[in-house]
Amino acid sequence: MEETFVPFRGIQNDLRGRLKCYKQDWTGGFKAGFRILAPTTYIFFASAIPVISFGEQLERNTDGVLTAVQTLASTALCGIIHSIIGGQPLLILGVAEPTVIMYTFMFEFVKDRPDLGREKFLAWTAWVCVWTAGLLFLLSILGACSIINRFTRVAGELFGLLIAMLFMQQSIKGLVEEFRIPHNENPRSTQFLPSWRFANGMFALVLSFGLLLTALRSRKARSWRYGTGWLRSFVADYGVPLMVLIWTAVSYIPAGDVPKGIPRRLFSPNPWSPGAYENWTDMLNVPVVYIIGAFIPATMIAVLYYFDHSVASQLAQQKEFNLRKPSCYHYDLLLLGFLTLLCGLIGIPPANGVIPQSPMHTKSLATLKHQLLRNRLVATARKSISKNASLGQLYGNMQEAYQQMQTPLVYQEPSARGLHELKESTVQAATCSGNIDAPLDETLFDIEKEIDDLLPVEVKEQRLSNLLQATMVGGCVAAMPLLKRIPTSVLWGYFAFMAIESLPGNQFWERILLLFTAPSRRYKVLEDQHATFVETVPFKTIAIFTIFQTVYLLVCFGLTWIPIAGVMFPLMIMLLVPVRQYFLPKFFKGAHLHDLDAAEYEEAPALPFNLATETELGHGASYAGDGEILDEVITRSRGEFRHASSPKVTSSTATPEIDPRSHRSPRLSTSPRLSELRGERSPRARGPHSPITGEPRPSNLGKSPLNSASS
Amino acid sequence: MEETFVPFRGIQNDLRGRLKCYKQDWTGGFKAGFRILAPTTYIFFASAIPVISFGEQLERNTDGVLTAVQTLASTALCGIIHSIIGGQPLLILGVAEPTVIMYTFMFEFVKDRPDLGREKFLAWTAWVCVWTAGLLFLLSILGACSIINRFTRVAGELFGLLIAMLFMQQSIKGLVEEFRIPHNENPRSTQFLPSWRFANGMFALVLSFGLLLTALRSRKARSWRYGTGWLRSFVADYGVPLMVLIWTAVSYIPAGDVPKGIPRRLFSPNPWSPGAYENWTDMLNVPVVYIIGAFIPATMIAVLYYFDHSVASQLAQQKEFNLRKPSCYHYDLLLLGFLTLLCGLIGIPPANGVIPQSPMHTKSLATLKHQLLRNRLVATARKSISKNASLGQLYGNMQEAYQQMQTPLVYQEPSARGLHELKESTVQAATCSGNIDAPLDETLFDIEKEIDDLLPVEVKEQRLSNLLQATMVGGCVAAMPLLKRIPTSVLWGYFAFMAIESLPGNQFWERILLLFTAPSRRYKVLEDQHATFVETVPFKTIAIFTIFQTVYLLVCFGLTWIPIAGVMFPLMIMLLVPVRQYFLPKFFKGAHLHDLDAAEYEEAPALPFNLATETELGHGASYAGDGEILDEVITRSRGEFRHASSPKVTSSTATPEIDPRSHRSPRLSTSPRLSELRGERSPRARGPHSPITGEPRPSNLGKSPLNSASS
Repeated sequence: MEETFVPFRGIQNDLRGRLKCYKQDWTGGFKAGFRILAPTTYIFFASAIPVISFGEQLERNTDGVLTAVQTLASTALCGIIHSIIGGQPLLILGVAEPTVIMYTFMFEFVKDRPDLGREKFLAWTAWVCVWTAGLLFLLSILGACSIINRFTRVAGELFGLLIAMLFMQQSIKGLVEEFRIPHNENPRSTQFLPSWRFANGMFALVLSFGLLLTALRSRKARSWRYGTGWLRSFVADYGVPLMVLIWTAVSYIPAGDVPKGIPRRLFSPNPWSPGAYENWTDMLNVPVVYIIGAFIPATMIAVLYYFDHSVASQLAQQKEFNLRKPSCYHYDLLLLGFLTLLCGLIGIPPANGVIPQSPMHTKSLATLKHQLLRNRLVATARKSISKNASLGQLYGNMQEAYQQMQTPLVYQEPSARGLHELKESTVQAATCSGNIDAPLDETLFDIEKEIDDLLPVEVKEQRLSNLLQATMVGGCVAAMPLLKRIPTSVLWGYFAFMAIESLPGNQFWERILLLFTAPSRRYKVLEDQHATFVETVPFKTIAIFTIFQTVYLLVCFGLTWIPIAGVMFPLMIMLLVPVRQYFLPKFFKGAHLHDLDAAEYEEAPALPFNLATETELGHGASYAGDGEILDEVITRSRGEFRHASSPKVTSSTATPEIDPRSHRSPRLSTSPRLSELRGERSPRARGPHSPITGEPRPSNLGKSPLNSASS
Repeated sequence: MEETFVPFRGIQNDLRGRLKCYKQDWTGGFKAGFRILAPTTYIFFASAIPVISFGEQLERNTDGVLTAVQTLASTALCGIIHSIIGGQPLLILGVAEPTVIMYTFMFEFVKDRPDLGREKFLAWTAWVCVWTAGLLFLLSILGACSIINRFTRVAGELFGLLIAMLFMQQSIKGLVEEFRIPHNENPRSTQFLPSWRFANGMFALVLSFGLLLTALRSRKARSWRYGTGWLRSFVADYGVPLMVLIWTAVSYIPAGDVPKGIPRRLFSPNPWSPGAYENWTDMLNVPVVYIIGAFIPATMIAVLYYFDHSVASQLAQQKEFNLRKPSCYHYDLLLLGFLTLLCGLIGIPPANGVIPQSPMHTKSLATLKHQLLRNRLVATARKSISKNASLGQLYGNMQEAYQQMQTPLVYQEPSARGLHELKESTVQAATCSGNIDAPLDETLFDIEKEIDDLLPVEVKEQRLSNLLQATMVGGCVAAMPLLKRIPTSVLWGYFAFMAIESLPGNQFWERILLLFTAPSRRYKVLEDQHATFVETVPFKTIAIFTIFQTVYLLVCFGLTWIPIAGVMFPLMIMLLVPVRQYFLPKFFKGAHLHDLDAAEYEEAPALPFNLATETELGHGASYAGDGEILDEVITRSRGEFRHASSPKVTSSTATPEIDPRSHRSPRLSTSPRLSELRGERSPRARGPHSPITGEPRPSNLGKSPLNSASS
């Protein structure tokens, strides 16, 4: 994204870029057919469940003025509008925790003021939303989103981990509350007797852990050994919603023996407050003093929204997803302003871009795309084999089929990307002679596994899944009677599940784990997929960097406990940007920082363009079949393409980094691509300095005999 | 074991064989030092917990005449005597379920008879024990144990799986009972109110699943990535007892909020019934009619004991453990007769050999031995490397050290076994040149991982662990106040844990799993360690054999539900012996039966002594470090040494088995040893007929350049 502060320029660029892809956004979605339902339902649950829970919080905190009905309606409305006229369709909108907290504060403020009071609450918040919208317009017009570029991985991942911690905190709080009497309830009813409370708490533990463990297991179903292909796919795609249903059903098993209310289920929210329709007229009844005063919370909310919305969008568009369509930050912020205005006028809390649902959306669309590509390539390969093609011809046919599936995007040059190259070991094994033009022995060439190697990571970028999930969220309002049956403990389990699901792939988290890995075990890290820095940066440096980041994270987390000011914790994270740009380079070497946390505004330190460059991209990877690749790839791969495509890597003659961790010889890994190391995984890696393999992978710039095949 | 029915001959042979090793049984145990405590505590818990549970059952069923104190005393007494003067020290004795069932029936019988009644119960059972002892003497003298030879894997594993099912059944029954009012308890006390019962049930679910999952996890601690070496070893060795303690502690957390009795804990057993000391005199008071009548239950019990004791001993001595000391079935049965007599006279239920504790004992001693050997070899290797030895010299030194650690057993020729040969890939990688006499590059040779490959499976055969665990069980009698604190739900979780722990390594179970594995996933089986039959026997045959075995298993399981006759289910299993010998060969080919269920009394079908022989021994294996090998080896390896060491494999020219499963080319696997495939594991196996590797392993009979090194 071009960094510009010229008024309207950013918005113009964004619109220009996205309008070109607009048609394809829809056609691509419809072409996927029924398969689009898998990511849709996955995200629907991930959106709806937190929103319902926030709605309940709001209901408690605003004495019923706002309920789950309003939060669902807001999420649905904003989601639908954003998916149709928004910029980045991968971005999921929803009512988020900061909104709930702000509204709670505003209600506390309003409640006791004689001029305002409960009746004028929605009217006053409408004014807050007006001011917020105005500020957002200003920010978007002036191109404030441009500084998102400076928001590097270190800040984004810290924020992601913080959100995971907050979800987990909510989950634990919720479970502890199951043992106590909730507010606003009759303490004398049977279900709140000490014995039944204890029983309810235990039941809640069983249900929530049951959901958590089974949901986590079901996500890995593609890698299971048992069961047929379609069953495993089904469980992997729809497993989580299925588990929610199953555990809700389980919660009814003791229904005859327990009083009504065990286990605790979602509240019955009040119907839509009729007063909302009179909001506009009400708005004029608010005293001018408060109208002006509404500016103060509006600033806080505007900053929060600017931050959340843009970072959520950024996390959904990380480099490893290989997205082809352009980003659209400025315009999306502008649209957010309109949506905030709209929601405020209607009298519902506004929605904004949410984490972790947005990156979850992108990941699930990557899995979808992988499956679509794979099916096509497998069909092509089978046809070629039945015609007795050689390995070279087979590869060529698949490459062609792959290119055909690439949608031509008129605003871009045709994708230079192709299938990955065949590995030498594949060529060796499949042809028994190393000659790729010899007839292929089909018994030695297992199509399905090879193809997973060859496919690069791609995402099905379209608007349909977003629209559908937002509509389904809207449908929840009507489905309230059904939703009320879900036990709250299942919700807490789901929160914990979302927190845990967001961890893999977060390099910060992986670095924390690395700190706990005994030195003798570190070779295991190299055997799995791992990021560049594991090999290139000395362990001590990684440790210090990680500890710094962890301390910062704990400070931010501690901030969230401070009653009012705590909601401004995003400012603390924004502070990371200058810290990263000016402060950290004083303590860490440029090359190390580049591996741990590459920033586009930094020059990549010069590296000799030779084997050493390849060595920096070493990864250990191992997949094993249809779709499992995505259980690993999306969650773990980092940085490799950054190097290969960054125009800043030059061919100077700086010496390769010697690993000061030991006196052993320099790194020998030579595998720049994820898939190339598949199959070369060996449990016999000999330490972090010289990973695995006996097959040095030649540099991908000329030496491979297959380069001509990858057009 | 020589099959003989000459009176006393079997016992003579046994004694002769074991007396030679008697001294070493003790010295070997003491030499292991403190490490002997790990398997000791593991087996102590595995023995004590079921015995306590059976004690409680007995207490309920015999109106308090017999309690957990008696069962513990019996287990301890018989265990101590057996470990000191018994034959096979790996065999664990304990009060088992059949004994409990028989005593229950006998009590029911006695209770209502005016001549006997409750007071004479122990006296009458003493007469039963007298008859039983007599029958056992008769069986042992006449060499009835010889037919254990005919008891092949198919019967042994079926029995093992049946026991696992019974443990699991007990576990589930126990958990369900937690929701109900137990017998003989005051239904009006607070803890049995519906609300508290439900709470107790839920708490029980939490505790039992908590124990089950954490205990299963802790067993694999050696393979963990996190934590230092000693911590992981500690957790792996002592994890299960630790988890029992931890979950018992957890059960106290809500202590203030719940009534006494939530969660339910072990009963307080009555102290030792004083009447037992007068048993001898009491015995003469039993009417003669009943003395004679005691013969009938005695026959049933004798058969049960004969079966349980011998099969438990056999399962603890399976071929893959490479035991060096001889078996001792006849003498052990004789000793069992004495023990039964003794227990009967004292007035406690007798103990006999138990499953699954006996094979668990052997497995844990194998892990111990592996660790001891490994430490020694690592030290030797490090010394050699510091002297700049070549790979060949290093190997030679380690082989020497290994031989030194082999205890000379004066009754056997020195062990022909040595370390496994080095793999070619190791030689290649470690020396960079394939020349084993060149100086070794220590950076490329990771000692610790190599050594795990080289060590064959061995067991630390000694008597100390058995003696110690039996003593500790005896100590439980004194520690009853502490034991009473363990919640019953923790017991149920432990039962489930024992059931699940016994599954891996059971080929029957693995075949059942194979039935559920989709054809496209079967290559995964080959990637892991697997038994011979996966490659050599057509899938359809495996399926039919497994289904037959499963139906038989279910019939036996169903039999256990029949009230009285059900206790004779072992007869059904003994029926399997003639079924296997005469019936199955009519339906399955000899070669297939040999792979699925080798019987020593059958001739192995002739195989050409060439590459095809090697192909039959193909396994895929993969280990990754200290001690994890044993997480895999002991539980999965089967049959490979059977072929290599069986003198019946001849060099006829029969053609290799073509896999009728597909039209593809014959098998190409060429790796007869477990460790040789380590590191050659590739996720790219191409179907069950042609496993992996590009490195055909030369036959181990002359071609390897290292043969001279393996003296």
